[in-house]
Amino acid sequence: MSTNQNFYSVKDVSHLDQLLLSAQGMKAHPLKYKEFGKGKLLVLLFFNPSLRTKLSTQKAALNLGMQVISMDMKDSWAWEFEDGKIMDQNTAEHVKEAARVISGYADIIAIRSFPGLKDKESDYRDVVVNNFMKYSTKPVVNLESAIRHPLQSFADLMTIKEYSSVKKPKIVLSWAPHPKALPQAVANSFLEWMRAAGDSVTITHPEGYELDERFTEGHHVVYDQKEAFKNADFVYVKNWSSVKKYGQVISEDPTRMITREALSLSNEAKLLHCLPVRRNVVISDDAMDSDHSLISELAKNRLYTAQAVLYNILKGTL
Amino acid sequence: MSTNQNFYSVKDVSHLDQLLLSAQGMKAHPLKYKEFGKGKLLVLLFFNPSLRTKLSTQKAALNLGMQVISMDMKDSWAWEFEDGKIMDQNTAEHVKEAARVISGYADIIAIRSFPGLKDKESDYRDVVVNNFMKYSTKPVVNLESAIRHPLQSFADLMTIKEYSSVKKPKIVLSWAPHPKALPQAVANSFLEWMRAAGDSVTITHPEGYELDERFTEGHHVVYDQKEAFKNADFVYVKNWSSVKKYGQVISEDPTRMITREALSLSNEAKLLHCLPVRRNVVISDDAMDSDHSLISELAKNRLYTAQAVLYNILKGTL
Amino acid sequence: MSTNQNFYSVKDVSHLDQLLLSAQGMKAHPLKYKEFGKGKLLVLLFFNPSLRTKLSTQKAALNLGMQVISMDMKDSWAWEFEDGKIMDQNTAEHVKEAARVISGYADIIAIRSFPGLKDKESDYRDVVVNNFMKYSTKPVVNLESAIRHPLQSFADLMTIKEYSSVKKPKIVLSWAPHPKALPQAVANSFLEWMRAAGDSVTITHPEGYELDERFTEGHHVVYDQKEAFKNADFVYVKNWSSVKKYGQVISEDPTRMITREALSLSNEAKLLHCLPVRRNVVISDDAMDSDHSLISELAKNRLYTAQAVLYNILKGTL
Repeated sequence: MSTNQNFYSVKDVSHLDQLLLSAQGMKAHPLKYKEFGKGKLLVLLFFNPSLRTKLSTQKAALNLGMQVISMDMKDSWAWEFEDGKIMDQNTAEHVKEAARVISGYADIIAIRSFPGLKDKESDYRDVVVNNFMKYSTKPVVNLESAIRHPLQSFADLMTIKEYSSVKKPKIVLSWAPHPKALPQAVANSFLEWMRAAGDSVTITHPEGYELDERFTEGHHVVYDQKEAFKNADFVYVKNWSSVKKYGQVISEDPTRMITREALSLSNEAKLLHCLPVRRNVVISDDAMDSDHSLISELAKNRLYTAQAVLYNILKGTL
Repeated sequence: MSTNQNFYSVKDVSHLDQLLLSAQGMKAHPLKYKEFGKGKLLVLLFFNPSLRTKLSTQKAALNLGMQVISMDMKDSWAWEFEDGKIMDQNTAEHVKEAARVISGYADIIAIRSFPGLKDKESDYRDVVVNNFMKYSTKPVVNLESAIRHPLQSFADLMTIKEYSSVKKPKIVLSWAPHPKALPQAVANSFLEWMRAAGDSVTITHPEGYELDERFTEGHHVVYDQKEAFKNADFVYVKNWSSVKKYGQVISEDPTRMITREALSLSNEAKLLHCLPVRRNVVISDDAMDSDHSLISELAKNRLYTAQAVLYNILKGTL
Repeated sequence: MSTNQNFYSVKDVSHLDQLLLSAQGMKAHPLKYKEFGKGKLLVLLFFNPSLRTKLSTQKAALNLGMQVISMDMKDSWAWEFEDGKIMDQNTAEHVKEAARVISGYADIIAIRSFPGLKDKESDYRDVVVNNFMKYSTKPVVNLESAIRHPLQSFADLMTIKEYSSVKKPKIVLSWAPHPKALPQAVANSFLEWMRAAGDSVTITHPEGYELDERFTEGHHVVYDQKEAFKNADFVYVKNWSSVKKYGQVISEDPTRMITREALSLSNEAKLLHCLPVRRNVVISDDAMDSDHSLISELAKNRLYTAQAVLYNILKGTL
C-alpha cells in the first residue's frame, strides 16, 4: 500500500484554498516554474479517449519543465485487476507489475479509465485507479475514473470563484438529455468539490436520475428545472445515466435541454459544461453562443488547475 | 472569424522569397533558434495517417524549442462541422468548441484531414481545416487538407530552387498510374506554389484527369507524356484520381509509369515525388534508384520548410 | 549498406564491460548527461505493442536531453520489404524510402517488429530490422525484432551482475507454460548475451522446445526442471513457442509453472522475467510476491541500459 500524495478526489487536497491560489498563480504566470520539474517524468495512461484532459495535463507538465509520455492503452494487451487470478484467459499483465514498473520510470502517473456502466457495485469500487494507487510507488493522478473526475471539478471550482460576483452564488447542477448512456463521474466530483469548498448545490433532473448518496450529501434536489433555475448564478450542465436503473437512459426529455429561454429564468446565470457537448440536444446553439457561456473559459482553466496539482504533488504540498 | 496568420495555402505567404530564404537559413543552421519557441505549444491533429509530415513538423517545432503534442484523432469521438445541427447522431463535439478549446492550450494548431473523394463540391469546400481556421483563436497550419498540401509544395519549391542550374527550368507535373483513388491535394498545391513563384508548369496526364481550373491557371496541359518530358529539367510525379468523374480511377495506363527510359527523353531531369510511392507501379526501380532522383532530398527539405513556417508564424512575419 | 553503429545484437557491442559500466553510471547519475543529446532526435517505430520498452527507451532519451517522437505503425500504411516488387497490392511504401526519409530527420531510429511465427526461415531472416539497418543512414536500435531483444538482455545481464554474490553464479533459463504462442526473441538474446559475458546457462524445457542452435551454443539443456534448478543462483523464466514445430504450442505442462516450491530446490535463486507475465500460469503468485523476485528491479534497469546504449551510440563508443 503506497503512502503517496495521490490526486484521486478532493479528499486528497489538504488545503483547498491554497491549491486554488496556486492555480490562480499559474494562470497569472504560466511559465514561472518552467525549470521546477526538470528531469521528472509524467506518464499518462488513457484507457479511453480524451481531448481536453490529454492536452491540458500534458501542457501543464511541459510548462513545469517536466518530461511527458502519453500512452493510449486500447491497443495494448489487457490488464488484470483481480487478485489471485489464474491468468489463462484474456489478461496478459497484472496491475501489480504494471503499476510497479511504470513507477520505476515515472515521477507521477496519471490514468483515465471509464466505467463499464453495467454493474454499479463494480464500477463504484473504481478498481483500475484504486489498484494503480495501491501498487504504484509514485503519486497517481485521476484523469477521470469510473466515478470521479477531480481535475475537471477543480477547474469548475476555479471558474466559479473567478466569475462569481457574490460571496454565496446560487449554483445549479442541471441534468440535460443525451442519446447515449454517460458516466456519473463529472456530476459526482462536482458535488464533492463544491461541498468541500463550502457550497451547497441545487441539483435538478428527472425523477429516477438521483445520484449516489455519497455525493449528494450536503446538496438538495429540485426536480422542476424551472424552479431550480430561479435566481441561479451558475448553471452547470451535464448528462448522466441513471444510478438506480444502473447505466440506463430512462429519459431523453427534450424540454430539459438548456436554452437561452430556460436561462432567462435565472439571475443571468453563467453557463458551464465540461465538454464535449452535443449542441441542440444537451444545450441549444442560442445558449452555447450567448454571453451566458463560460464554457471556453472553463476549458482553459483545466490547464492551470492541472499545473497546480502537478506542481504541488512534486513539491509535496498537495 | 479569426485574423490569425494561418498557413492554409500559398496565399497566406506575404513574401515567398523571404520565406524561402528563411527555410534555407534553417537548413544551414537548424538549431539557431532553439530557444525561440520556448514555452510555446504546437498541437498536431491527424485525422489520417502520416509519416513525413508527422515527423518533420514535430522535429521542426522541437528544433525551435517548442513544446509538441501530436494526437491521432481516429480513435476519438467524431466532430461536427455543420452549423445549427441537432447533434443526436454520431458526432459528439462541434468544431466550434474543439477549435476554441485547443486554442486555449496551443500557440499553433496543425491539422491533417483528407477528402472523402465521393462529393467534389463538399471536398472542395475543405470544411475541416476551414472551420478550424474560422473558430481557432490561434494560427492554423494545413498538414494536408482535402485539396491542398502547402507544406509539401513549399518543400517542392525549395528543392527545385536548390537543384536548378538554370533560371527558368522546364518543370513537368506528370500523373502516373496507381491502383487506388488518391486526392488531388499535392498536385493542386504544387501548381499553386509554382505559379506564385513565377513558374509555369507543363502538366501531363491521360484525358479525363484534368485538374480543377482554380489550380491549372497559368499552366498548360500536354497529354502526350513523351512530348511533355522533352527538355524537362524537373519531373514531379504524382497520381491523382479524376476530378471530372470525381474520385474515380479512370485509367491505370502502365505506359505512364515513370522509368529511366521515360526520363531519358528529358534534359537529364531531376525526379521528384512526395512519397509514399509504390515502386514499379508509379515509378520503376531503375528510375527511383538512379541519379535522377531527388526524392530523399525533397523529404529532408520538409523539415526546414516546416521550421521556417512555424518560426515565421510565431514571429508574426509569415 | 550503412556502416552505422547499430544496436541489433550483442555483436554490435565492442566492449561489453565498458557498456555495463556505462549503464551502472547512468543508474548512479541519471541526469549527468542531460545536455548531451540536445538537438538530437530519437524516433521510435512500434509495429507491435509495448509498455516497458516504450517507456524506458523514451525516458532514457529524455534523460540525455534528446528530442523524442514515438510512432505506432499499426494504423499506418503497410511497408514493403522485398526488393524488386511490383507494389500493386497492399504495401504502399518501400522500406528503402521509409528508412532513408526517417534518417533525414532522426539521429537514432529504434524499431520493434515481432515475428509472424508461421515461417521460421522468413522470421529468422529478421527482414524488418535488417532492411531498416540496410537503408538507414543513421544508427538503428533493435526494440525487439523477430528473433532478438538485445535491450532486454542487456538489462538482464546488468541485473544478474548487480545481484550476484558469487563470481560464477549458476544461471538457469527455464521455459514455463503459456496459453499462446510466443516468440523466441527474449530467450535467444538472453543466451547470446550471457555467452558474450562469459556465462554458460543451463536451459530447461520440455522436449521439443529446443531453441535454435545459433543461440544455444556454449550452453546446455537439462530437460528435468527439478534437476536444472539444483544449486541455481538465478532462474530466468520465459515461455517460447516451439522452433522445430515452428510457432506451435506443443506443451502447456502446468508442472513447469514456476512456484515458490520449485524455487526451493535452488540455492535461494533470484527470479527474473522480462514481463508481461501471466500470474499463476507462468509464475505463481507465491513466487512472484516472494523475496526471490528481482522482476521490478530488472524492469527498472531497462532504463539505465537503454540510456547507456543511446549515449554510447551518440558518442560513437558503442
